[in-house]
Formats: sequence, structure tokens, C-alpha cells
Amino acid sequence: MSGSNDTAYNDTAYQADGVGFTGGSALRGAGEPFRAVNPSTAEPVGPEFTSCTAEDVARAADLARDAFTANRTLPEGWQADLLRAIAARLTGARDRIVAAATAETGIDEGRLDGELARTRDQLTGFAEVVGEGGHHGIVRVAADPDAAPPRPDLRRTLLPVGPVAVFGASNFPLAFSVAGNDTASALAAGCPVLVKAHPSHPATSEIVGRLVVDAVAAVGAHPGTFALLHGADRASGAAVVTAPPVRAVGFTGSFAGGRALTELAAARPRPIPVFAEMGSLNPVFVTEAAARERFDEIVSGFAASMTLGAGQMCTKPGLIFTTRGREFAERVAALLDKAEPGVLLNTATRDGLNTRLAASTAGPGVELMTTQRDPEGPGLRAAAKLLLAGIDDLAKTPALLEEHFGPVAVVVDVDSPERFAEAVDLLPGSLTATVHAEPEDHAWLVPFTAELAELAGRIIYNGFPTGVAVNEAQTHGGPYPAASDSAHTSVGWTALRRFQRPVTFQNTPEALLPHALRDA
Amino acid sequence: MSGSNDTAYNDTAYQADGVGFTGGSALRGAGEPFRAVNPSTAEPVGPEFTSCTAEDVARAADLARDAFTANRTLPEGWQADLLRAIAARLTGARDRIVAAATAETGIDEGRLDGELARTRDQLTGFAEVVGEGGHHGIVRVAADPDAAPPRPDLRRTLLPVGPVAVFGASNFPLAFSVAGNDTASALAAGCPVLVKAHPSHPATSEIVGRLVVDAVAAVGAHPGTFALLHGADRASGAAVVTAPPVRAVGFTGSFAGGRALTELAAARPRPIPVFAEMGSLNPVFVTEAAARERFDEIVSGFAASMTLGAGQMCTKPGLIFTTRGREFAERVAALLDKAEPGVLLNTATRDGLNTRLAASTAGPGVELMTTQRDPEGPGLRAAAKLLLAGIDDLAKTPALLEEHFGPVAVVVDVDSPERFAEAVDLLPGSLTATVHAEPEDHAWLVPFTAELAELAGRIIYNGFPTGVAVNEAQTHGGPYPAASDSAHTSVGWTALRRFQRPVTFQNTPEALLPHALRDA
Repeated sequence: MSGSNDTAYNDTAYQADGVGFTGGSALRGAGEPFRAVNPSTAEPVGPEFTSCTAEDVARAADLARDAFTANRTLPEGWQADLLRAIAARLTGARDRIVAAATAETGIDEGRLDGELARTRDQLTGFAEVVGEGGHHGIVRVAADPDAAPPRPDLRRTLLPVGPVAVFGASNFPLAFSVAGNDTASALAAGCPVLVKAHPSHPATSEIVGRLVVDAVAAVGAHPGTFALLHGADRASGAAVVTAPPVRAVGFTGSFAGGRALTELAAARPRPIPVFAEMGSLNPVFVTEAAARERFDEIVSGFAASMTLGAGQMCTKPGLIFTTRGREFAERVAALLDKAEPGVLLNTATRDGLNTRLAASTAGPGVELMTTQRDPEGPGLRAAAKLLLAGIDDLAKTPALLEEHFGPVAVVVDVDSPERFAEAVDLLPGSLTATVHAEPEDHAWLVPFTAELAELAGRIIYNGFPTGVAVNEAQTHGGPYPAASDSAHTSVGWTALRRFQRPVTFQNTPEALLPHALRDA
Repeated sequence: MSGSNDTAYNDTAYQADGVGFTGGSALRGAGEPFRAVNPSTAEPVGPEFTSCTAEDVARAADLARDAFTANRTLPEGWQADLLRAIAARLTGARDRIVAAATAETGIDEGRLDGELARTRDQLTGFAEVVGEGGHHGIVRVAADPDAAPPRPDLRRTLLPVGPVAVFGASNFPLAFSVAGNDTASALAAGCPVLVKAHPSHPATSEIVGRLVVDAVAAVGAHPGTFALLHGADRASGAAVVTAPPVRAVGFTGSFAGGRALTELAAARPRPIPVFAEMGSLNPVFVTEAAARERFDEIVSGFAASMTLGAGQMCTKPGLIFTTRGREFAERVAALLDKAEPGVLLNTATRDGLNTRLAASTAGPGVELMTTQRDPEGPGLRAAAKLLLAGIDDLAKTPALLEEHFGPVAVVVDVDSPERFAEAVDLLPGSLTATVHAEPEDHAWLVPFTAELAELAGRIIYNGFPTGVAVNEAQTHGGPYPAASDSAHTSVGWTALRRFQRPVTFQNTPEALLPHALRDA
């Protein structure tokens, strides 16, 4: 990976024209114009983009349907070639991508390089999965003419569902955006992808989108295999979800956004699934023994985890339950007060955070433990903030049980660890749940861990939830409202399964079977 | 299996009290009374039942949630014992079950014995799957502290989603009802089940439900593990789908019913998935070569398949496309005119069929080819009917492209096999699609088979769609509106996956892992 810093952001390096893509060509939406805002300066940045209209979306969706049919004639495993071609192009464009993303998101270069590496690894990882063929999910049961009733030859495989719409996330301009997780898993399944770019980082999206368009052409896939659609209004997103050829939706973002899309999708004449990852509280529980043995380590680990990426991570630990609440909060607050303020992604994030914070701190029994204030000035900088509340205060202030997307967390003082289970009953479904414990706790943690497994998609012991390993054992999802569909993960190789459906071939001649189902 | 016929239906053998079950006890719903109707006589039969109110349902759902928690302490694999205990009790109660089901559904004893055997085989088959442990879906990735970033130990498993609501189907009073496919797969996953009995066969449901209650007690599961809820009104079904503890729904029935339930489920504060199997057209295509080589065989096979169970099968072939349409229709009609009329399940089925038939036969270019009329008299008997239409007539008469649930099918005359693909474009998603072909057809059938795989969940060559083998390679589902969720099957062992969700355990101490994830 290039670590060069000689192309820091400037309008030349930026290289964005204010366009999306459809059918392999630039698309300037026929809707309203908008521009990105640099959150470090609160000034507009980059070229003017325009929102797509329903007609723009309809054309892209029709091309995606054409591509889905046309790509059947490509050689087996073409998706792997495409994924690798995209990954290779990301490497070559590193400087341009990082320059644009820094300007549009305020995320620092180090984290963007990490995210770029992860994005490439996801693409090549899915390519490997496709290459090995495990994604076909083949099951064969041989014919048995002597059975009663006679049993036919049955061969089951998983086929791509058709065109998939992907909504880019504001907080991961690379790994959960144009060529991110959802796009990689949908392409791996063999589905054309319509990306609805997040309006906070349109130039980053354009640069990456252009690479994907180029890769699609390089491997000989139909140009409708990929489209990049811009839009700063709700109508453009709604048009993507309701376009008749679209067969599934991947989304990472807010609860309100995810819920709106799932309702639109369910009301279609032909309903489609929406795989929405909608954020999370990610509670942490600290046993008395763990606090006794590793207090300092848990204090510093928590402070680091909750402020990673200015707290704008789906897996940010938002609540921590401990019997030493005040002491823990004082120690974490001291660290936070010394930390650099973070940059929030956009004004909607800042306004949402401030609204929720005001509601939380106004609650009875809730104390603001940090003293650092948000810096003055035009940028969207926010100091990390820590609240302290008693477990009995949670039910009195609903905002405490809502995600504070940003560098804010709540320490919950619990008078006895026996009340941890009560806390679980109060909490909404979560992506993760974390426990810090010692071996002496294990007896009572058996039922508690089972409770947590009802609450979350990933259980973590003696660690922190930020940092999501990308492999076949990962679950990034969880009970509603963490995810709209708890049956799947949006990270890791099994995410591919969201965009497949089973088909069984009965007594089908060898020549007419999909390649993967043939005997030879 | 007992083949004894000495307990033909009478009120003594019937042995139903007009109750459902909740918490292991009889439940008489607090709603409106209703009675089953014997479709052979159109007279009421059996005791009076009462619909459950929302309060009745809420109590059952709360008990199911309690059971879900309490059953965690049962020995690993308890579900297999429960499934086998239910299967054993079905055998013992064969005579009572068949007597009640004959009276309530008009299905003959031979088919009911077959259905009972299938129901038992499903239960014991799922027990075997659970015994082998494959349903845990375990994936492990070992820790790698030297990776960048360091990789934690991750272990992924599939856990039960929680209480599942199952709607019994009218056409399979055993195999898709109280102890049928959906119940067996949900129990296999470890989920408590609330069965909403179909109001057409409440006594059959009560008899089977009592056996399940008894089996639950025998294996020491929590009495909330199973509930049987009666209801002849929409409100009782809606109450089941909207009860907060319910986490998923299995349904087999009409499009209107399935769509209503999916909309209710999507509008819940916490939406849940509905796995609805909503019927199908099951198109059949006959190539010119196949018609030349096997005309008689296809004629008689089609006539038998479309009239099996009086045409009240999800997989009844509803449309057959051939270039020899008139000749084929004349030959099939001649067979149908000699066949015994079938008994329809209930007045709603009869009225729905007659309404649709009137709409279809009124269409331009549509000919009624059969001459047999429905028998006079009070019973719900219907003669098999065959329509003939040209491919260009399909688009003019929408009713031709809707399921005629009953012994009715449409022969579509196609001037050239090149137009088969046009037909596929007109058809809604289907459970199955069938082709009769000869090896000389294979070249042009490659793209056509790929088209069919987009249309249906199961592709059949040189056979008929009725008869659904129950094993791990089966797909009984398909694109909307055949099923509400094309990602799953409702028949076969992978149906279990509908009622599971993945959970990943990160760096979790051995003692706190689910048994299946431990090293030992």
C-alpha cells in the first residue's frame, strides 16, 4: 500500500466530475443539485452533483435486469475476476480516494488507509469464496425408484436473486459504500448492483464507482452490472427501493432510514427483502471480579473503543454496566477530557447527537462526567462526552436507551451484578454484547450469556466491540432494531447468502443443469 | 401403519371436545363459536369450537416466551426426543385422526394414511437432523494474534429465533397443519410453537394438538412449548402475528391470506419474517419432440397430476404449454370427463374456484373443453374442468394467470416453441416449472432452463410437479407470489433455517459457550 502523502487534498487531485454511472457511462441525475460539505471546515467541497430522478433510477434498474440475464453466458466464476479487478484498481487509485474521502468525511488518512485495505481484502476474500465454489451450497439426493413413493434425483443450489440495491453508509466511505461489503457480497453472488451513494461523500463515491465501471468492462460483464446513483433527497432512495427489477436491498445507516426503506419494500406489489443494519447500543458488562483484576485496562480500553472514529462506529460501546459506576466514570471521563475532539461526519450527525445528548442529560439522575466542550469554530468537531446514570434511571429517560451516534457513552451504575439481567430486559436488540469477567464468574454467567445471545448477534468476552473481523465466522447483525433481518450478517463471507435463493432441479438432464450441479 | 377401517367416522370415534391448548391445558377461546362443515354433505360436523380472542393469544404467546427461556436448561438435543414422541403418538392415534380428518376435509382414507405417514416421516427426519447436529451450522475461525489487526477466536452458530406462529393449511390437515412441516421445523430449531388451527378442520387439529401437548409433557419441556389456537375470524390470526413474543411466522394458504399476514408483520413495532407459501400456477412446457415421443404418457400424467387431491395441491400443474394444444386438450378432457368428481375442502374454496372459473371462461378465445358438470346435491363436489386458450389470449384475461385452486387447468396452445420464453415473461413466480423434452431439444433448452430457474423454486424434467420429496435437497418455495420469501423452502430439512439466527461468540470462555461450540 502506498503511504505517500504528497497528494493531500486539492481540487486537482480530487478528480471528480459530479457524476454517477449507468450502463458504463457517466450519469448526471436530472434532479436537484447538491454539494458535499467538508466537516473539518463546514464549507462545501468538490463539484456539484445532482440527485437522480425516478426515471434515472428506472433506466439503471432496467439495465441491471438486462445485465443479470446477459451475464449468464459469462464463464463460471466471472464474479471472482470482477471482484479482483475492482480490488486491483482501488490500490492504484489510493491517493485520489484518500484525498477525496478526507475532504468529504473528516476521517484521517491512517484510518482511511486501513479502511481501503479492508475494502480490498473483502473483495478478494469474496473472490476466493466464489473460486472455491462453496457459495453454490450444493445438496444432492440421488434417485431411488424403489422408495415409496419413488424418489426423484434432486439437486439443490443457490442462485443469485437478481439486481441488488446498496445504500452507502456515511461512516465507512469505502468499506460500507460503493465497493464495500454489500456490493462485494452481491457481486459475489452474481447479482448486478445499483449503489445509491451517500450524499455526504459523492466524490469519493464517484472515484470508486468509476473504477468499478472500468473493472466491469475489463472482465466483459454487461455494462448494466453496476450503477452509481447520486441523490440528496428521499425520493431518489425511494425510487431505488421501489424499482421493479430490484430484488433485494443492502443498507447500513440510521434506524429511521432503515425502517423507512423496509416499509417501502414491504409495500411493493412484489415485496423484496431489505437487509438493513441500523446501529446499536453495544452494551458492556463488567463483573466485580473483572473490575478488581483489570480496572485500569477496562477504563482505557473503553475510552479508546467509544472514541474510535469519533464514536461513529456501528459497534461503538454505548453503555457500560458496572457496580463501580462512579469510580469508573470518573476515570474514563479524565481520559476523555484529555483527548482530541473528533470530527463528525455531517451536520445531520451533529444535530442528531446534540438532540439526543440534550434529552439524555436532562433525565433524572443523569450526570455529565466530562468537562471538555465542543471546540468553537466552523468545523463539526465534538468533544467526547460521558454520562453517568443509575440502573433505575434507564427506564425514566428513554433517550439513554437510544444510540448516541458520536463520541458519547453512558456508564450505568448497578448496585448488584444480579441486576445485569434486568438491564438486558430493558435493552433493544444489539449488534454486540460484551462481558468483562474472570473465571470465578463463570457459574452465574452461563444463563446470562444465553440471555445475551438473545439480545445480540455477537458476544465478546474480555474485549471491546469495535473492530469487526471479516471472515466466515463473523456475525454483524442482530435482533431488531440492530438489523431488520436477524437471520443474516452484513459482514463476512456468509453475507453472500442474503442475495441468493435456493432452486432444486428434479431429474434434470446433465446438459441443462447449472455447471456446479453436473456430475462431471 | 394400521390399515384398519373399523373406526369409520362417528361421533364417538371423533373424540374432540371443541378446545385448543395452552400451557398444557385445554383452552376454550373467549370469542365467537363456529363448527366445521363436512364437505361431502355440506352439513356441520363435530363439536362447537370458539375463536380465540387477543387476550387468549397473548397468554399463549407469553407462555411460549417463558418456555423458550426455560427449555434452555433441557439436555442438548431435547427437540429430537420431542419430535419422535409426537411421531409415535400419531401412529397410535391413526384411527381417530383419519376419522376426524375424513369428516372435516372430504379427503379419502388412502390419501390421509399417506399424509399421516409423511407427517411422521417429517417429524422423525427432523429429529435425525437435530441428532446429527448439522443444524447448528458451526463455523470456527481460530485466533491469530500476529495478524494485522490481531484476529480473535470467532465461533458462529445458529440459534433458535424464539416463539414461532404456524398457520395450518386447509388442504393438508396433517402434513401442513398442527404437527406438520412448519411445526416440525420450528420445534427442531428449538422454537416454541403457537399453531393457529385452520377452521376447516378444528377437530383433527384438536386430536393432533392433544398428542403434541402430551409429548411435550413426556419429554419434560415447558408446557408453553406448544399451543393450539382456534379461530374462524381474521382477528384471531392477526392477534397471533402481532403478539409481541412471536419472532417468525410459517403459513401455507392463499395469496390474499399470506399477503395480509406479511403486511401485519412488517408493520409491527418489531417486524418479524413471515414465511408464506401462497400457491402457484406450476406451468408445464411440452416440446414438439416430447409430444411426438410420449404424447399418451403426457396426456394421462397431466390428467392425473391436475386432479390429485381434487386439484387442491400447491403444486397442481395449472397451465400446460404445447404446440399441439387442441389435440392435447381434447385428449385430456376425455379422460377428465370419465373421472369421479372430487370433493372441495370448504365453501370458500368452492366459491373462489367458481368465481375464477367464470372469469377465465368468459375471456376471449377461451374454450371449456370438458363437458362433465358438477354433481347436484348438498356436498361440495366438483367435476374436473379443462380450458383451452391460445398464448395470445393469456394477456387478455388476467384470471388465466391466477391459480384456480381445485380440479381446473388451462391448456395453452403455442404456435411455436420459440414463444415458450414469452410465456415465462407473463407468468408470476411459481413453486415449480416443468418441461417435457427429448435430448434433441437440449441445445435451445439451456437458456430456457435458466429462465425457468428465475421463475420457480423447483425445475422438473419429464415428470409432474405434484409429489414433493421431503429431504435436504428439496426446495418448496419460489419467487413472489409463490412464496413471500424466496430465500427459503418450507419443505425438507433446510426449512429449519427459517427459524434460526446466527450468533458469533468472540474469545468466549469454553464454559460459557453453547455446547455445540465447545472444543471438547
